[in-house]
Amino acid sequence: MRPLTLEPLTAEAFAPFGCVLDPASAECRLINGGTTERFHALAMADTEAQDGRTILSLFRGQPRAFPYQVGMMERHPLGSQAFFPLTPRAWIAVVAPDRDGRPGEPRAFLVPGTIGVQYAANVWHHPLIAVGAQSDFLVMDREGGGTNLEEADYDAPYVVADPAG
Amino acid sequence: MRPLTLEPLTAEAFAPFGCVLDPASAECRLINGGTTERFHALAMADTEAQDGRTILSLFRGQPRAFPYQVGMMERHPLGSQAFFPLTPRAWIAVVAPDRDGRPGEPRAFLVPGTIGVQYAANVWHHPLIAVGAQSDFLVMDREGGGTNLEEADYDAPYVVADPAG
Repeated sequence: MRPLTLEPLTAEAFAPFGCVLDPASAECRLINGGTTERFHALAMADTEAQDGRTILSLFRGQPRAFPYQVGMMERHPLGSQAFFPLTPRAWIAVVAPDRDGRPGEPRAFLVPGTIGVQYAANVWHHPLIAVGAQSDFLVMDREGGGTNLEEADYDAPYVVADPAG
Repeated sequence: MRPLTLEPLTAEAFAPFGCVLDPASAECRLINGGTTERFHALAMADTEAQDGRTILSLFRGQPRAFPYQVGMMERHPLGSQAFFPLTPRAWIAVVAPDRDGRPGEPRAFLVPGTIGVQYAANVWHHPLIAVGAQSDFLVMDREGGGTNLEEADYDAPYVVADPAG
């Protein structure tokens, strides 16, 4: 087993895999007569392939046990998938570059509980990793025909230590 | 001024105006090896008109003062707009049928803090009404060209009493 070190999330580090949904760095527009701040377009859906539609769902994740073994990855060839936490609790996003149709060396990001990420279409990522307690997320992704899920196992798992230390 | 009574939100009552985003009544799928519940497709975006795209934004609403006067309404002819609260605090959705291109008699719904609504494209609604304290919402709506905002004033305002009594 190989250790997988948690990295802090930055827009630059995550750029090859999608985008970071961070209100603090989004364009802010004052709307509704000045009563509302609109942190604009944290994410833009990419779901149109094969007549896909964009949907909003709620994911309720059970917390993972640590040290956590990353043994498989998945990707959605036909659409992006954005996660934004409803519970202000840090979580973990694991992504990987593609290597000849399989996930390469993974990278793990510790994501603050007020920030989301969007995996770009066809980007290898691990299923939701909630930390510490049951956690809810709003998820914007694709509904439609076609095969929009691929899974692949690693030959040997990577291990993420407990972010709580 | 005319009183506007708050109604409890039900899917049936809201159906003429859009849909209710309620995890408790959504289809629930167990995914990610049983570690995650997916409350599926709380809302489906309708943003494709005139090459629109679907985006996710964060709205930070300041609380309204009560009694609150509903003096105007708006609508988005080219796209749906979904709101889901990030802060578990009740809020108010005001909608109206169309009457010859203007908003008709409004209806006001008290929405629990764990539930969202989506205004269908071209449905008259009041801008975000946060209650009690600053409240954050995730908003799925449309980005793109064309005129996607109409506003109209009522001849005389309707008045919503403080939901806290």
